[in-house]
Amino acid sequence: MKINLINPNTCQGMTEKIAISAQSVALPDTHIIASSPLHGPVSIESAFDEAIASAALLDVIQQGEQQGVDAHIIACFGDPALDAAREIATKPVIGIAGAAFQLASLVSYRFGVVTTMTRTLPASQHLLQRYGYQHLCSGVRATDIAVLALESIDHNTYQALKKECQRAISEDGAEAIVLGCAGMSDLAHELSQQLAVPVIDGVVAAVKLAESLHQLNLCTSKQGQYAKPLAKAFQGNFQHWSQ
Amino acid sequence: MKINLINPNTCQGMTEKIAISAQSVALPDTHIIASSPLHGPVSIESAFDEAIASAALLDVIQQGEQQGVDAHIIACFGDPALDAAREIATKPVIGIAGAAFQLASLVSYRFGVVTTMTRTLPASQHLLQRYGYQHLCSGVRATDIAVLALESIDHNTYQALKKECQRAISEDGAEAIVLGCAGMSDLAHELSQQLAVPVIDGVVAAVKLAESLHQLNLCTSKQGQYAKPLAKAFQGNFQHWSQ
Amino acid sequence: MKINLINPNTCQGMTEKIAISAQSVALPDTHIIASSPLHGPVSIESAFDEAIASAALLDVIQQGEQQGVDAHIIACFGDPALDAAREIATKPVIGIAGAAFQLASLVSYRFGVVTTMTRTLPASQHLLQRYGYQHLCSGVRATDIAVLALESIDHNTYQALKKECQRAISEDGAEAIVLGCAGMSDLAHELSQQLAVPVIDGVVAAVKLAESLHQLNLCTSKQGQYAKPLAKAFQGNFQHWSQ
Amino acid sequence: MKINLINPNTCQGMTEKIAISAQSVALPDTHIIASSPLHGPVSIESAFDEAIASAALLDVIQQGEQQGVDAHIIACFGDPALDAAREIATKPVIGIAGAAFQLASLVSYRFGVVTTMTRTLPASQHLLQRYGYQHLCSGVRATDIAVLALESIDHNTYQALKKECQRAISEDGAEAIVLGCAGMSDLAHELSQQLAVPVIDGVVAAVKLAESLHQLNLCTSKQGQYAKPLAKAFQGNFQHWSQ
Amino acid sequence: MKINLINPNTCQGMTEKIAISAQSVALPDTHIIASSPLHGPVSIESAFDEAIASAALLDVIQQGEQQGVDAHIIACFGDPALDAAREIATKPVIGIAGAAFQLASLVSYRFGVVTTMTRTLPASQHLLQRYGYQHLCSGVRATDIAVLALESIDHNTYQALKKECQRAISEDGAEAIVLGCAGMSDLAHELSQQLAVPVIDGVVAAVKLAESLHQLNLCTSKQGQYAKPLAKAFQGNFQHWSQ
Amino acid sequence: MKINLINPNTCQGMTEKIAISAQSVALPDTHIIASSPLHGPVSIESAFDEAIASAALLDVIQQGEQQGVDAHIIACFGDPALDAAREIATKPVIGIAGAAFQLASLVSYRFGVVTTMTRTLPASQHLLQRYGYQHLCSGVRATDIAVLALESIDHNTYQALKKECQRAISEDGAEAIVLGCAGMSDLAHELSQQLAVPVIDGVVAAVKLAESLHQLNLCTSKQGQYAKPLAKAFQGNFQHWSQ
Repeated sequence: MKINLINPNTCQGMTEKIAISAQSVALPDTHIIASSPLHGPVSIESAFDEAIASAALLDVIQQGEQQGVDAHIIACFGDPALDAAREIATKPVIGIAGAAFQLASLVSYRFGVVTTMTRTLPASQHLLQRYGYQHLCSGVRATDIAVLALESIDHNTYQALKKECQRAISEDGAEAIVLGCAGMSDLAHELSQQLAVPVIDGVVAAVKLAESLHQLNLCTSKQGQYAKPLAKAFQGNFQHWSQ
Repeated sequence: MKINLINPNTCQGMTEKIAISAQSVALPDTHIIASSPLHGPVSIESAFDEAIASAALLDVIQQGEQQGVDAHIIACFGDPALDAAREIATKPVIGIAGAAFQLASLVSYRFGVVTTMTRTLPASQHLLQRYGYQHLCSGVRATDIAVLALESIDHNTYQALKKECQRAISEDGAEAIVLGCAGMSDLAHELSQQLAVPVIDGVVAAVKLAESLHQLNLCTSKQGQYAKPLAKAFQGNFQHWSQ
Repeated sequence: MKINLINPNTCQGMTEKIAISAQSVALPDTHIIASSPLHGPVSIESAFDEAIASAALLDVIQQGEQQGVDAHIIACFGDPALDAAREIATKPVIGIAGAAFQLASLVSYRFGVVTTMTRTLPASQHLLQRYGYQHLCSGVRATDIAVLALESIDHNTYQALKKECQRAISEDGAEAIVLGCAGMSDLAHELSQQLAVPVIDGVVAAVKLAESLHQLNLCTSKQGQYAKPLAKAFQGNFQHWSQ
Repeated sequence: MKINLINPNTCQGMTEKIAISAQSVALPDTHIIASSPLHGPVSIESAFDEAIASAALLDVIQQGEQQGVDAHIIACFGDPALDAAREIATKPVIGIAGAAFQLASLVSYRFGVVTTMTRTLPASQHLLQRYGYQHLCSGVRATDIAVLALESIDHNTYQALKKECQRAISEDGAEAIVLGCAGMSDLAHELSQQLAVPVIDGVVAAVKLAESLHQLNLCTSKQGQYAKPLAKAFQGNFQHWSQ
Repeated sequence: MKINLINPNTCQGMTEKIAISAQSVALPDTHIIASSPLHGPVSIESAFDEAIASAALLDVIQQGEQQGVDAHIIACFGDPALDAAREIATKPVIGIAGAAFQLASLVSYRFGVVTTMTRTLPASQHLLQRYGYQHLCSGVRATDIAVLALESIDHNTYQALKKECQRAISEDGAEAIVLGCAGMSDLAHELSQQLAVPVIDGVVAAVKLAESLHQLNLCTSKQGQYAKPLAKAFQGNFQHWSQ
Repeated sequence: MKINLINPNTCQGMTEKIAISAQSVALPDTHIIASSPLHGPVSIESAFDEAIASAALLDVIQQGEQQGVDAHIIACFGDPALDAAREIATKPVIGIAGAAFQLASLVSYRFGVVTTMTRTLPASQHLLQRYGYQHLCSGVRATDIAVLALESIDHNTYQALKKECQRAISEDGAEAIVLGCAGMSDLAHELSQQLAVPVIDGVVAAVKLAESLHQLNLCTSKQGQYAKPLAKAFQGNFQHWSQ
């Protein structure tokens, strides 16, 4: 199968990093196609960044559909433009936050989320509510590590992240940790070893869910909310969407 | 004061229509500046339409700020990009759905919403939840009138809308009606006369709230969730946001 | 327009204070008629005080209706007897807590409430739930300043109030402050200057909402929950309500 | 023990009726003292009626305390002034709606409520929410029988009530019926025989709960929310509350 | 009346202890029959213990029905197998957690729960949600006292329990205390004296509710959720349930 | 990997059926070991059946752990004893209802559940709430097909099931269908073809999730809620659990 793995920001180093993570857990016949949009912010750390990133992200979804991919993954913890992407895709579209919550809830009663900037906490809360996992989350903690600082992680950054995970466990009662940024994808294994609880990275979780849906022949329902958008005119930079 | 009244779709007729509605209730010293984005869909009827419209809508917010407006109104019932707009604006940003829910809750115990397409019902439900008005809403009803059909409303369209309002009252127990599309703005008065309950249009509601905030010197808090986004690089069509 | 501004307690100093606040933001053609009931407690700090105050408060609503006012404001943060008042009034009835929550949610993502006595905290929580703003409130904090101590505020009282506002911001993540007592009405401006976040006083918020509804010709729905009460006999001190 | 059984409306026939119901289930050493306030409406069918009735109801609570009763019952399905009464009482105060919900939840998974006027439905919903029984209620149904029509029930009224109970069972899935008015107290037995499900009357439920609390020496907590109100001045008709 | 008082664990000392508590508050004509299952764990401190205990507990329910008891009490704070028991019983089945929550809510606005092991906290939270008392609970606190340590309580154990109750009051705002284990049944009186708030033991609460239901002729509804299970074959150790 | 696929009822035909379903989607190196408990009911259609089935089901979990399986699946739509099983297992334990909800939410906005007996509806509602999917479910519909009737499905049974799925889509707005019984496992493909929406069977969903967790090295957290139960004595038929 072919998976359209989308890094919604324009940081190429991040795209490569998550491609490596995804490939490391993919089945032999799973082909990971990693890319990022041509237009948009170099990192996503606010509702504004997310809104801007969403427009070009949808181009990458559309390209994937045209190239015949079997599933799409939106590899940013805010799961930006997920509903919009599902409308234009016939294949499944998976957000890494939702994917991580699902697997975390299978191996723990309550999981903690450890994420980047303090100001993204309400966004994480909203995702937990959107997906229905609020009562299964022991708390969301910010590290105030900038997304791009995760491109190449130094010792201090790792320690800061690990310390916040430990507080999630000891203070909040987290029984597993969900990593709240695609850029933390390569740290899950080491953290898990040191913390003695399951540590879930959404990127690899999404890959396994994409494979699962593909093997079960499950595609996005085109009845109701995720039906194709009505054909209409688009102007300016978005004329290519006109039908 | 100056109000930046934004029609987030690119239909010029709709922009003119809501400008007239807004002007009709504005105080003498309120100057309505109505506009729509250069880029995007001609109407907003799906999550996809909304995601595409959001990017260029934020340009119009930014322009308003630069022109020294005192408030912004996003005149589409989905309140698209509201949080993103509040991040980049120092002046208040008001969505017409939120504005309508607020005034409706002051004159009724439970209000009904009558909107356009069936597939937008989940979006309305999400807005009610976002703002906290779910328990005060007797139900959301779709008319399956396309947004652009509202540009110039014929007799049949009006009757279909009125009939759904009547069902909201008699079947759902609605005590007031919120009109679920900016394009219905000019029908509030006539419907109210015929239905004998308050009928609330979000466009005029938002104008009065914008004036209220201005007169009380209340601006968007720049602490926390609506703080200015971090400066960073943007690529391609969004390079103008780079700092 | 004429606004029936009701201080539900019998403290005349408080009535004068809120009249000044209301007048300071009213439009030139808005006439504020401030009064308080003849019967009841000198301050409202418990469910008991509120229950007793409610009976005579309704007389003042009725008098306002007979005098042809265009809106009523119940200027006590518990919004006492709001539903009952809306039943007997044809004009809008606005509570200051609900009004403050509405405007606070337009300029912040999450607001904090700073109020008087610890024992009124559950009442504030109930109001947040009644109106649907619980998820938008970062917390309610008590100062244990008695309501009557607010009649003339000394330096220590002001500092205690300000300190609690600061804790709401730094500890709870409040992005705006709602003042939880009509008696704090004259402090909003100074606090806002010093705290660098929006500070919302419900009295002035309610005045602007009353003007807004009036300008939009919106009155209390007489269908459903707020229909006129059935005519019936009343005994004793309430015989004047018999019909 | 002595129970202060309060009919909050001024209809003497209703007081006598509920006294008979209460006495019929009381233990031999339970003394029922039934009374109604001197001031207020002859029946309670709106928020307005309830607000007016509350003031004088609190006098009856106070009198009961002074007479050394062991518990108070507020015998109106809206449980008016319950929190206020608990503040001024040291002995337990029980509302008949809350009492009925409790016992109904012990003998069924989901119970239905059948009440009087359509316009009281939101009040019932609010009570279910206040007490936490919303998810255990299959629905609230109105009969539009006026409260005073229950003083002496004719065949048609009984049939209308029974029919609505049957619909609650067959259409809503009610497994037990809660009677939504103290005036229906004498019908529980006959309805239960005919409906083949438990039928719960709040008046008798409250009597048993009052006896239960008394036998366990449980009184209203005077810590926190139900602490004695602060002493203060009251004016006019309520001067007797001044301290 | 006869009450089938079931200690779901196999610790005989615990059975005797709760029998004494139950008898101490029972009416003269209430006959308490205390017993415990033949099969199962000596204490219940996990979901696993509860699942194992449930099977044999249902035998004791069945025996009680055959012996003609008038009510059943499941005297373990997890209320294990309550729904299953109600299905096979025609008489009321009462869990001690649910019973304690009910009475606590009659004498306080918010109660705290003080229980045994930390790992049972989610189970208590689930019960609060199942019954609808989550918003009326100020918090659940664990003492990490093992259930069997409660069989004969020493000074240190009592002090640890009392200290946690005090913290529930001073830190969480508990206005009453619910004891979270049947084994604490004999401590309610002494704790109540020392804490100056109501202390509710579920065992005695359940006895009074059982008597209340009996005196009102209320039995488990056999319509809907608690209808008799369908007759079917059972194998192995459960063949006696085959019909 | 080895999966311990448990049919919690004692119907051997059902065990064989779900084994075939599971095997049909398993990866080449996944070994399905299907079994059912020695003790318990031949089908699970009530809380009573579920409570009885749970005890012996835990033996099968324990045996699987001892045989070195890599994951356990509880193949009954009530997900019986899930928390208890997770406590005693170190490998992941997956319930088929939870698994189906997860995959359904990835390919639809709102899914419908079509299940067996009407009396199991509250159990399904409880599962939706337990897992947090209530707001994503358009409704649960019963077919009143007995579980054992699904062992070999005739034309009429299939048509009844299909008809209820169609009503879920057209009346409730279901965009995907979750099959509410392991015994329907072999019908998912045919129904999906005919209904034109995704149809999700929990058995195959659970197999893919078990494989996913295994490939990611994720096991049940042994911190907190799912820690090993405390060692203790068990009596009678459960003595083998004593430690």
